[in-house]
Formats: sequence, structure tokens, C-alpha cells
Amino acid sequence: MQLAERMQRLGTETAFSVSAEAAAHAAQGNTIYPFHLGDLNIPTPESVVQGAFKAIEQGKTGYCPNAGIPELRQALAEEVNSTRGTGYSMENVAVQPGGKPVISKFLLSLMDPGDEVLYPNPGFPIYESQIEFLGGRAVPYPYLEQEGNFSVDLDDLQSRISPRTRLIIVNDMHNPTGARFSRQELGQLASLIQAHDLYVLLDEAYFDICYAEDRHSLAAIPGMQERCLILYTFSKKFAMTGWRLGAAIGPEELIQGITRLNVNQESCSNHFVQYGALAGLKQGQKEAEEILQRLKRRRDTAVELLQEMSGVSCICPESTFYLYPNVTEALAALGTDLESFRKELLKQTGVSACARHHFGSPMPGEQQAYLRLAYSGISREDIRAGLQAWRDFLHSRM
Amino acid sequence: MQLAERMQRLGTETAFSVSAEAAAHAAQGNTIYPFHLGDLNIPTPESVVQGAFKAIEQGKTGYCPNAGIPELRQALAEEVNSTRGTGYSMENVAVQPGGKPVISKFLLSLMDPGDEVLYPNPGFPIYESQIEFLGGRAVPYPYLEQEGNFSVDLDDLQSRISPRTRLIIVNDMHNPTGARFSRQELGQLASLIQAHDLYVLLDEAYFDICYAEDRHSLAAIPGMQERCLILYTFSKKFAMTGWRLGAAIGPEELIQGITRLNVNQESCSNHFVQYGALAGLKQGQKEAEEILQRLKRRRDTAVELLQEMSGVSCICPESTFYLYPNVTEALAALGTDLESFRKELLKQTGVSACARHHFGSPMPGEQQAYLRLAYSGISREDIRAGLQAWRDFLHSRM
Repeated sequence: MQLAERMQRLGTETAFSVSAEAAAHAAQGNTIYPFHLGDLNIPTPESVVQGAFKAIEQGKTGYCPNAGIPELRQALAEEVNSTRGTGYSMENVAVQPGGKPVISKFLLSLMDPGDEVLYPNPGFPIYESQIEFLGGRAVPYPYLEQEGNFSVDLDDLQSRISPRTRLIIVNDMHNPTGARFSRQELGQLASLIQAHDLYVLLDEAYFDICYAEDRHSLAAIPGMQERCLILYTFSKKFAMTGWRLGAAIGPEELIQGITRLNVNQESCSNHFVQYGALAGLKQGQKEAEEILQRLKRRRDTAVELLQEMSGVSCICPESTFYLYPNVTEALAALGTDLESFRKELLKQTGVSACARHHFGSPMPGEQQAYLRLAYSGISREDIRAGLQAWRDFLHSRM
Repeated sequence: MQLAERMQRLGTETAFSVSAEAAAHAAQGNTIYPFHLGDLNIPTPESVVQGAFKAIEQGKTGYCPNAGIPELRQALAEEVNSTRGTGYSMENVAVQPGGKPVISKFLLSLMDPGDEVLYPNPGFPIYESQIEFLGGRAVPYPYLEQEGNFSVDLDDLQSRISPRTRLIIVNDMHNPTGARFSRQELGQLASLIQAHDLYVLLDEAYFDICYAEDRHSLAAIPGMQERCLILYTFSKKFAMTGWRLGAAIGPEELIQGITRLNVNQESCSNHFVQYGALAGLKQGQKEAEEILQRLKRRRDTAVELLQEMSGVSCICPESTFYLYPNVTEALAALGTDLESFRKELLKQTGVSACARHHFGSPMPGEQQAYLRLAYSGISREDIRAGLQAWRDFLHSRM
């Protein structure tokens, strides 16, 4: 059997191999501290569960409209408008079986073969995979640590735009660094995008996992609602990763194209799950806030311990449930490289983490070494125990 | 905004326009007899519902493996082996969010640009749409009515194979005609496929909606398990259309490629819905049998009334929940064409049905005219009332 040529260009999430390593280590009877999981070990709010149960009882088990049930599309437009200051209506919303489908549907709808697409590196590895798989050219732009922050150098970004550049993927709030653009940066980014007539996949999967009061969306800047497709997901805010529900939110013409892709690819998203999500938006905001506060406490615990370690520095991000500690000095002191260190850390302490290279190939000139820790799938007690074990391991070797 | 060029090649299910017409007619206060719906108005079995409820309570709300939970993959392999006589194991199964995703994933995995793909016409319109959208050449092969049966002329099919033909889509049991291949025909089809080194998307979405005792699968013929990707769905058998769960079942190498597509396109299918489906396979077979018997009674009622109508003939199929009555004589008697007749039927009687052209463009030389009636989404009482209204309408005009 010969697979199609395009399958050679299809990437994956190499972080899954980290899960497999952790599982193998656990199977030998070892304790694991699962910092590698971008999943939540928090129950889905009762409002969502009851909303879904009730919908099943009411027979919402048949097909529903391809773009989603109207009530949910309406509620999503209102939710996004109230949190971002945009002006969407239900015609701007196509419900999806998760946030991830929005990536491929954005590219299928707007990218012609040979088009260049800017994407963040380090970043979610599916961007590069899908751009290349679907016949585009993936052009990375870096996030760099400077002045106690991770950020994108917008002059550098602009220098990567060519006459073939048609699209850009913006992941704000950012996995893996936890960075977010300031209001001023968003304005500059919008100017750049408009000047070069680009369209944007605005991956805001973590927009609701933000501990700061002031949140800003690129889509709310004048002229940008027409150029942005928002990737929205229920996964993080309502601890619904396994429910698989999200939405594409953007210009009506694009949403019509994406809805036609829905018809072709999956008909519709699960019917009663949409009623669960609707109940979450209507009655579950307090439960979502509790999840957020729980995550914030985990973040504070983890950052405090990481900042105490010799050879490790860790920025405390205001968004996402990830930390991206810089371990360059620790590697130098131990005389090892990042991947060896990551594996040794698992073996000696049970701390399972992803590393920089699970989020794209390092860019030319990159000097710093990072691990990525997720604190969404691990209790505060285990965060403490794991990071103390890590600290003891480090300090015994340095 | 300029959409990508490929979007111009993306088709849709034109049958949705029939739903819209019916809804508009109903909104004017008219009674509708919904024969157009390929959906079920039958509740999902309690075993499935309870299996899903229990899974939510047990916290199966996070991500699960990309290929599906191992228990379901194992149960599906066993189910398919026991009903078809194949020899699959769980490594041959990748769970999907519905049956439909298997169509695009088959084509993405095996079709290179310019490859020719044979597909049935009349047939499910997404085949042609996805072949063309993904850069292949869609080559239709007909189903024709002869000797009281719908069937594929295998000599004719062979004549459509060219050096560029790489794939064939076989939909057995067949939407819209309800036809199925005999054991002998399957053997001939297998020989032809092997002689020309083709790979097969075997769409068996309706395999479990079969009223005959003896069922045969192309995949069970020696040498064919290596060449077939089975499209499996829970939608029909367990009345789970809105739950969105199915599977791709085929050679391990292909399943690995498809699982990598899962990683890229949607991560995984809904976690707890998989436990619901598992409960259905383990404890819901009796409930599935009751659904089947209920559909059979509807079929018998509908066929009897259709066969009584002047100018209409209707084959009684042993599979699917569709009927494909031949209305050629009625059109001739009324001096009208198929589309006008379909619309007039809705207007005058409330009977809403799809027609031949909703399943692909008529092939050169086609003389007969057909409507397609689904009896899955309409009660027996309404089947009677609707078809009697149709009969009265016809007989008053002829």
C-alpha cells in the first residue's frame, strides 16, 4: 500500500511521545508528576453536564444544523462580544467538534498551494503540520525572552513577510510561553496585517485562561473583525477537553465556506453537547471562574518553586496554564543537553515535562533552552512534591 | 475576501435545500410528511445513554487516545468480525467523530492529485464533492434498475477503469436505491479490484440496516481485507446520528495514517460518547434489533402503498431505510418533469421527498425518473397518511 504523497508532509504532536514515556515509567511502579499534559484534571462544571443530560432526555440525539444550533451560535456571538468588544452576530459563528478543526478549515478556505503562512515558533505544532500538509509554505516567526517577558519582535515579523505571504496565525494567549500581546502591540500588529493585506487565524484557545483584569483581542481593533477568524474552544474554560466542542468565528463569507466544509467533513457537531455548552455560557460562568482561580493557585505555587531553583529562571505569565522555564544555566552546570536533561528528570524525579523542541524546530541563533510545564492536569500537592524533587535533584548535582 | 481556489470545487448535500423547503412549507401552517430526512425519529437505546452518563460521572471528560479508547476499538473489531467474517484486531480500528470523516480521510491518505476515483451515481453526494475538492478526478459508475432490482453492471464498471484509476468507493448497502451486492457479485467485484490494483472505500454505513438473514461484506472476500477501508457508523444501528461517532476500519498502515490525521484534525472523538457506544455494542444489541424491526414495519407499509399507485413502481429493498420509487410513468401522464413534480407534491400533499438529482447529476442516457423516500424519520401513521395523500393527488390528475 502506497500512501498519498501529501502524507509525508503531515506532522504530529511529538508531545504524545512524552506521554508514552511517562506511562512507561509509571508502569514500572514509579510516581509520575504529569506536567506534560495540556489537559485538565478538573471535572466539567455541573451546569454543562446537566445541560447535556437534559438535552439527551429531550431527544436532542439526531442531526442538528451544520453550523450548530442557533441558540449556541447566538450565545457565542454575545460571549465573544462581551469579553472582547467585538460586534459579531450568530451568522459569524460556525460550531466545530473542538478548536482544532478551525486550523485546517481556515487553511482549506483561504490558502492556495504555494501561499506563505506565518506561524509562531515555538508554537502549537499542528500549525506547521497543517500548512505544509495542505500545500502551503510554513514561515515561522519567533517568540523571544527579553526584559522579563516573552514577546514577538514585530519588526522581525515584518521582515518575514514576502509577496507570497497571504495568511498569519496569531496565538494570543500563547502556548507554550504563556505570553500575550499588549494593547499597543496588538495595534501595531493590526497595522502590519492591514498594510500587507493578510488574513488571520486568531487562535484564542486560552483567551479565557487569563489572570489579568484587562484582556484585549486583535479582533476588536478597527478593521480586524473583517480579517480574523477566531478559534474558540470550550475545552479550557469549562474543562471540556474530551467533549470536543469549539467554534470558528469570523466574517460571514468565510463562515459560510467553513459551514460547507462542516457539511463535507462531519455533518455537524454533537447535538446534545451543544446544549451542555449553552448551559455553561448561560449558567456556568461562576463555575468557570472557580476553575480559573484554582489554576491561578497552581500557577503561583509552581512559579514560586521554579524561581527558587538554581540554574532555572521562570517568568510568571498572566495567561494560559503553561510555564516555560529557562533551564539554560542548569544544562551548562550539568554539562548536558535539553533532551537528555528532560529524560533524566523523568527518570530521577518522575517529573514529566515537554521541551522546546516539542513546539517546533529551534530557529537559527536560538541560544536559550526551555522546558514546558502544564499545571492544568496536576494537583497543587503534586506540583509541590514534583518541583521539590526536581530542585533536590538539581541541587545535588550542581 | 478571496476564498481559496479549491473552495470552488467543494460540493454540498443539495438535499438540505429540500429540508429548507419543507420547513418553509410547515411554517405556513401546512402538515409535512418528512420523507426527505436521512435521520431517525427514534430514541437512542437506553444502554447507550446510560453508558455515556456513567462515563461522564466517572470523569471521562478529558482527552482520550487519538485512535479512540482501546476497549471500543477492540469491541468494534469483534463486532465487525462477527457480522462480516473478517479478521480485524483493534490495530485495524481508528474511531472517528461520525462516519463521514472516513470519506475525506480515505481520500487524503490514498489519493494523489489527478488520481481517478470511481464512485456510485446516484450516490451520496459527498463522494464526488470530496474527490474533486481534494484534487482527484471523480468518475461515476451507475446503478440501474433491471429485472426488479437496482444493480451495478460490472462490465460497465470495468470499462470506466483507466490507467489513472487508483481508488473506488463502494456503498453497500446503497443510498439511495437500497440495493446490495449479491455474494456472487461481490466475488466478481473483488476480482476486478484486485486485477486493477485498486483500493476501496467500503461505505457500509447501512450494513446493519438489513432485513435479510444473509449479509455479505466485500471485506470478507480473500485478499480484500488488505484493500478495503470500512466506513463504520453508530448513527443508524443505534439511532445515534446526533452523537457523531463512527470508525475507519482497515489495514494497519492506513489506520496509522488516519490516526495521524485524527491528531491533526480533531485530536480525538468525544470521550464519554465512546463509552456509550461501547455499552451499545455490549448490551444494546436487542435494542438495535427492535429499531430494525420497527424500520422494517415502516418499509412494508410504505412499499405496499407505493406499489398501489398508478404510474409509480417501487422495488422493495432488503437494506437501508430508503425507497427509490420510479415515477417515470406518472410524470409522463401528468406532462411534467421530476423537479416540478417533487415541488408540486410538497405543495399539494405535504409529502417532502428528495429526487434523483440530489444524488448526483444524471448520467448520459438515463431515462427513468426517481424520488427518494426515507422512512427513518417518519411514523407509520404519517407514512400512511402521506402516501394516501400522494395517491389521491396522483389519481385525481391521471
